[in-house]
Amino acid sequence: MLSNIRIVLINTTHPGNIGAVARAMKTMGLDDLRLVGPARYPDTEATARAAAATDILERAIVQDSLDEALAETVLVLGTSARQRHVQWPLLDPQEAAQKLLGQSSQPVAILFGPEHSGLSNADLQRCDYLVQIPANPDYSSLNIAAAVQIIAYEIWRQSPSSIPVNDAGSAGEAVTQETMESFYQHLEQTLVDLQFLDPHYPKHLMPQLRRLFNRARPDARELNILRGILTATQKARR
Amino acid sequence: MLSNIRIVLINTTHPGNIGAVARAMKTMGLDDLRLVGPARYPDTEATARAAAATDILERAIVQDSLDEALAETVLVLGTSARQRHVQWPLLDPQEAAQKLLGQSSQPVAILFGPEHSGLSNADLQRCDYLVQIPANPDYSSLNIAAAVQIIAYEIWRQSPSSIPVNDAGSAGEAVTQETMESFYQHLEQTLVDLQFLDPHYPKHLMPQLRRLFNRARPDARELNILRGILTATQKARR
Repeated sequence: MLSNIRIVLINTTHPGNIGAVARAMKTMGLDDLRLVGPARYPDTEATARAAAATDILERAIVQDSLDEALAETVLVLGTSARQRHVQWPLLDPQEAAQKLLGQSSQPVAILFGPEHSGLSNADLQRCDYLVQIPANPDYSSLNIAAAVQIIAYEIWRQSPSSIPVNDAGSAGEAVTQETMESFYQHLEQTLVDLQFLDPHYPKHLMPQLRRLFNRARPDARELNILRGILTATQKARR
Repeated sequence: MLSNIRIVLINTTHPGNIGAVARAMKTMGLDDLRLVGPARYPDTEATARAAAATDILERAIVQDSLDEALAETVLVLGTSARQRHVQWPLLDPQEAAQKLLGQSSQPVAILFGPEHSGLSNADLQRCDYLVQIPANPDYSSLNIAAAVQIIAYEIWRQSPSSIPVNDAGSAGEAVTQETMESFYQHLEQTLVDLQFLDPHYPKHLMPQLRRLFNRARPDARELNILRGILTATQKARR
């Protein structure tokens, strides 16, 4: 449920950014905003930048500590612009949205640190995963509301509430490991049928293809298309 | 090429938004900003909101007319929050990014109208496609810089310049947009040969496959494997 996805802003400096975050959230159906130690809030600048999302601001809860903001959450993600955190598993925004939605039958949270410094090490300790928005390596510093907008957009796109603009889109139904395995077996058999893969000298062909398709993370519909192509290929061969 | 993708802001009211757009662009590797009749520009608010993207502002070109801003472009997209424009084909942000990148060997443009009214009918007449960002139907009014951020993010994600967050992939030799295009043509022809794709009723097959393979970002060696499979499939068919 979108209403269980909590946006937590920690020590935000500029009230205008808080308003812009509220607007970004509302455009994507999110409404639970928590403010941990904001520098200036409430503030007319926040209200101005919220545009018609002042209801999100009015419902926003100012919390004394991150602990309070995370009460009852079963999953916590942190956002980070930098590659510093090797000990945390990294997610891209699509994967982050999947995780958040996947567990949103209960409260889940995603944290955004102060504008200039990002999340502190203490804050990071609270995170199950880090989220990194792909960006220009020469300048990866997104405005905080812009970062919230991208994450919220990915959440909305994948949420059942969203209606795709047209039917070509929509990150579809996730597939199980078993389904992927059966796809790989089908792929391998097809490559053998094509005499492209010699089962006696397989080299590294299948591991390379597995790596490629694992990176793409096909959804159920995409996998159906791929399997349809394999079946058509096998027919052509016969 | 990212440098051929032009962001065109028409009659923008708030200079702060222009600065925020410059920042959004730079984070995603875009640098060609055109301002048609901005209400106030240059302006200290634009500079402040641009943060470290003032170089994009300095290179921005203020144009007297949309005609000038669109000079030499081979593709023009327009953004729209509303469902009013039934006569234009609609794209979602991913498809828009694909179209822009696909033709970016020459200049291409995407238009953003004034904050309160959006693109005029005259502006829309210049557009080949309309882009709609999926959003909460009860409040779909994204801030203009937030909208630019989402489009730019989709462009960056699909551009060969971007480096995946997770290094799940081999950091093999990157492939150019042209190489990817020629792979997609080979894939499409093979699917036609297999009678899996009916060129008269293509549906959304190729856009879906493009999305899948763009996500995987194959490197040169992987692409060679895929093309080898396509060639073997075409031989089997004959």
